[in-house]
Amino acid sequence: MNVCSTHELHQEKLDQLPGLLREVGLDCWLVWVRETVQAPDPVLHLILGAELVWPSALLFTADGQRIAIVGSFDAAVIPDVLYTRVVPYTEGIAQHLRAQLDMINPRSIGINESRNDVAADGLTAGMKAVLADILAPTSHADKLESAERLVGHLRGRKSPTEQTRIREAVRITEQILAELDSYLAVGQTEVEIQEHVHRRMAELGVGFAWQAAGNPAVDAGPNKPFGHGSPLANRTKAGHLLHIDFGVQTAGYSADIQRMYFFGSPDEVPEEVAHAFDTVRDAIARAAEILRPGVRGQDVDEAARAYVVDRGYPPFAHALGHQVGRFAHDGGTLLGPPWERYGDSPRGVVEPGNVFTLELYVPTENYGQVSLEEDVLVTADGCAFLSKPQRALRCIRRTVR
Amino acid sequence: MNVCSTHELHQEKLDQLPGLLREVGLDCWLVWVRETVQAPDPVLHLILGAELVWPSALLFTADGQRIAIVGSFDAAVIPDVLYTRVVPYTEGIAQHLRAQLDMINPRSIGINESRNDVAADGLTAGMKAVLADILAPTSHADKLESAERLVGHLRGRKSPTEQTRIREAVRITEQILAELDSYLAVGQTEVEIQEHVHRRMAELGVGFAWQAAGNPAVDAGPNKPFGHGSPLANRTKAGHLLHIDFGVQTAGYSADIQRMYFFGSPDEVPEEVAHAFDTVRDAIARAAEILRPGVRGQDVDEAARAYVVDRGYPPFAHALGHQVGRFAHDGGTLLGPPWERYGDSPRGVVEPGNVFTLELYVPTENYGQVSLEEDVLVTADGCAFLSKPQRALRCIRRTVR
Repeated sequence: MNVCSTHELHQEKLDQLPGLLREVGLDCWLVWVRETVQAPDPVLHLILGAELVWPSALLFTADGQRIAIVGSFDAAVIPDVLYTRVVPYTEGIAQHLRAQLDMINPRSIGINESRNDVAADGLTAGMKAVLADILAPTSHADKLESAERLVGHLRGRKSPTEQTRIREAVRITEQILAELDSYLAVGQTEVEIQEHVHRRMAELGVGFAWQAAGNPAVDAGPNKPFGHGSPLANRTKAGHLLHIDFGVQTAGYSADIQRMYFFGSPDEVPEEVAHAFDTVRDAIARAAEILRPGVRGQDVDEAARAYVVDRGYPPFAHALGHQVGRFAHDGGTLLGPPWERYGDSPRGVVEPGNVFTLELYVPTENYGQVSLEEDVLVTADGCAFLSKPQRALRCIRRTVR
Repeated sequence: MNVCSTHELHQEKLDQLPGLLREVGLDCWLVWVRETVQAPDPVLHLILGAELVWPSALLFTADGQRIAIVGSFDAAVIPDVLYTRVVPYTEGIAQHLRAQLDMINPRSIGINESRNDVAADGLTAGMKAVLADILAPTSHADKLESAERLVGHLRGRKSPTEQTRIREAVRITEQILAELDSYLAVGQTEVEIQEHVHRRMAELGVGFAWQAAGNPAVDAGPNKPFGHGSPLANRTKAGHLLHIDFGVQTAGYSADIQRMYFFGSPDEVPEEVAHAFDTVRDAIARAAEILRPGVRGQDVDEAARAYVVDRGYPPFAHALGHQVGRFAHDGGTLLGPPWERYGDSPRGVVEPGNVFTLELYVPTENYGQVSLEEDVLVTADGCAFLSKPQRALRCIRRTVR
């Protein structure tokens, strides 16, 4: 990725900010970080393509100011084309931060603290305490509030460059999966299949949308619980299913796709497997039919969940869909059930430009789980599939040697 | 890095914990995280070689219990050999966390909140609020305190495997720097030199101790402020200095070294450059003489700082030394001046097993800055250089083409 294209993306995201600040009723947004290699705030990827070492304040106002207060050794990494003012310091940031806030004189200051959204929760507990100390002598101390909605919009409404990059990540992920059809065979181990995919990724020069140990997740046979664990020495067998959960990252953006394979001919697919596959495929299609701007996340989840239960299966033990972008799990509104662990994220509202996964599994009695996952882009009045939805089990009849 | 060696390292770090908990007077330590790919707590590298998705509690007690309460889909990544109990959940973690704490019944619970140390500040503001809500109905709510000292000891006292890995990172960093002697020539750009180093790193299969854009930092000529910025199209010139700040990461551990080159023969080195070089080299040697267990970080910084001022230079605008380990800037006690931006970290006390940089610069009138950096290991009664200290400017007489 060259420097120009990075700036183009950050420019697009920074251009969204004044409108979003007004929309959520914030006068300014404060990103307050230190040693970002070790303690990365997830928003930094969107607004600055560099790491900061000393305590740093990035300030954005509803009238378009972009101010970076950074250690003197960090000043060189702040692009002039992106920031309207760079304030370097040596011994301490406190007086500079207070002075800049005095000049802005905001009524409200959004900070990255969120119970619900990991992507809007980049402020650490210690740094929040330091900020409180710095602002204590000023009137700004009482103006701090959560920027959760701002960050959710900024991250969720994918800009043109972001959409292009996600499409490219999906394209390469699908290419590698398509090539697997001519590689897979009865008798391979999960580890061998994962290593094959890793070699192809290296050849294509792409990274991992999540940690390599579980990407792709490769689950062969009926007794492997799906999750984020590593592949085992399990071997693929005739008459068994194979599940793959895979996503590459390219130019900093991710894909996340699940596919199902059957070792045998199409007419050998057991009835209970066919029923399970059709259920998962059609539940995803039903969710896609109602996914549109304005709908609540939990209502989309509920549509797929009710369909699965209606077809005689227990409800799946995870959310139907998460956002995809910088990260495979990108935070913000979730297409999920209103469970404690999800906080308020399922009550969020879907917006144009959001990219979601649609994914779920059902169990079979004798063949393990059947699970699929597609990636979709929310449009003005509905959604468009970015991945080509799997319509039928991929049947593999080859045997090793 | 294979799985066995990873477990060996985590085992060594986890084995340190009961003693450290008793030493700092904590009954238990709670690491409380979610979506660690996006929001990594810096301590996770030391105690678990995997990422966690759902809200997760890792609990460690002074009597040696290691309990992981994690989402059902994350349970597979917790190694049985490292954790004494794994508690998986589906809908919410709250009741499980309360139940485990009830069983432990601690008088104090350390959490990763620190004003001073980024490495001990992995708890986010939102997750702290969620934790407060979960514990509100219990007596545990009032037991929370900062685990800053615990994390500082755990991270700073390098185990045998950690020391071996840091030595290897230093060895490879020095190897690549040594090879530069036969590559560098008058007329090269900073960008070309960096790209050459990046190619060698790829050939040797090593990663970056900090972000690639500024690693190595390459600063040619008198008008380049040192920092973490990217190389420019500046060209090396006869009679000019070149500064390189470089560190590789291997098996998850880092090195951080600075070297100075002069384009010309040794007898052409200007007097003011020679005086500056000797000052920096000897200031580092003086600091190494007093660096030993029990000394305060700021006292080591002050020794080098006073020497530099005594030789007629302004004091350097950064700390003399930071710890090196998982990260090039590894947190904990700092060999630094008592400036606001460093918090309490310069008041920390040096311990056996700590690895520090010793680094500083002085300005010259006509040739820019002269800056060196070495890596040292604190021993029982002093310190040992891990890097081979630069004794003289490396003189390069070759010209491109």
